[in-house]
Amino acid sequence: MRLRKVKNAYARLQEHPEYFIDTPTSFKGKWKDLFQNHHPLHIEIGCGKGKFIEELAGKNPEINFIAIEKYDSVLLRAVERLEGKNLPNLRFILLDAKGLNEAFSEAEVDLIYINFSDPWPKSPHAKRRLTYSTFLQIYEKILKPEGAIFQKTDNRKLFEFSLESFSQNHWALSNISLNLHEDKDVDNIETEFEEKWSKLGPIYRLEARKER
Amino acid sequence: MRLRKVKNAYARLQEHPEYFIDTPTSFKGKWKDLFQNHHPLHIEIGCGKGKFIEELAGKNPEINFIAIEKYDSVLLRAVERLEGKNLPNLRFILLDAKGLNEAFSEAEVDLIYINFSDPWPKSPHAKRRLTYSTFLQIYEKILKPEGAIFQKTDNRKLFEFSLESFSQNHWALSNISLNLHEDKDVDNIETEFEEKWSKLGPIYRLEARKER
Repeated sequence: MRLRKVKNAYARLQEHPEYFIDTPTSFKGKWKDLFQNHHPLHIEIGCGKGKFIEELAGKNPEINFIAIEKYDSVLLRAVERLEGKNLPNLRFILLDAKGLNEAFSEAEVDLIYINFSDPWPKSPHAKRRLTYSTFLQIYEKILKPEGAIFQKTDNRKLFEFSLESFSQNHWALSNISLNLHEDKDVDNIETEFEEKWSKLGPIYRLEARKER
Repeated sequence: MRLRKVKNAYARLQEHPEYFIDTPTSFKGKWKDLFQNHHPLHIEIGCGKGKFIEELAGKNPEINFIAIEKYDSVLLRAVERLEGKNLPNLRFILLDAKGLNEAFSEAEVDLIYINFSDPWPKSPHAKRRLTYSTFLQIYEKILKPEGAIFQKTDNRKLFEFSLESFSQNHWALSNISLNLHEDKDVDNIETEFEEKWSKLGPIYRLEARKER
């Protein structure tokens, strides 16, 4: 997601060491040590303003969450939302998805959330879509063998592309919904983006697991 | 598709030997002999009243088509539509999809069309859906290694099921559309069912090819 540029966003992030981890690469393979437990590790790629991951972390204290965002101005909003709240199982890092394997070691992650990522509609930009084959290879590496990716989007073309990309790269699809809000999934946690856009058209959802 | 029962439908089908093949099992592995050429063989499973296959056959004289239907009353409508028309590359057979390998030998078919098949919405009936794994195994056998399945439906739940079934059974998906009529595919040939229902909601489409 995009947001107006915030002045000194990076410096201001550093004022929140309880949530913002400035040196994620130093925790590669050691996130258990940071959280001081052996709970499963779930990550969200592109957390935006963090509404989704905050609610998820609150509801699942037995799971550790890392929210990842590449824009510091956006991430600052997410971190500042949490001021005064107590969510010891949640951390935020500033990272481009291309660098995921610098912050996570092989088979360190149990679940990856990709919510309403940039659709990059033009063909020459297909490689930037978060479900492009090169990204799937990165996810495969950091995920446990039985790990999964949960994706949601309102963008039809991105979802069509993702279904094709997963199946062509030998990921098995399950729990697909082509109209999530019509299915009245009571467990669905909405992102801020979803709240706004689900009135205008269907929200698509899938789960993907690598065939090994 | 379902239709009111027509009296003597089977006997009346036999009055049209130019289109209706009464003994399809005798042509297993020999459809080339019937058509007297080596053109590719495309089949439609559940042709209904035959509007789709008639138009397709008319536009593609260099392809041989077999339209398959399990209800004689329905098939009669399709065959009677063609009276006086000259489509030497099209034939109709009365067959349940479970028996496909009695009418087609291994790798005899280039392409399978599945249009608006019965969604069998209740879970205990899932095995009857034409994209259930047992059917995919039959299709794999009669299809050439590079062969494909083209599926269309207006039924969201059937399409979600089909996407999952194909990917879980190692078929690669391509050219997916989650709203075919919005994509304005000029090559799309509508079934009679599609003409009627596409105003009410999206038409879904996919192509699937077995990974070998």
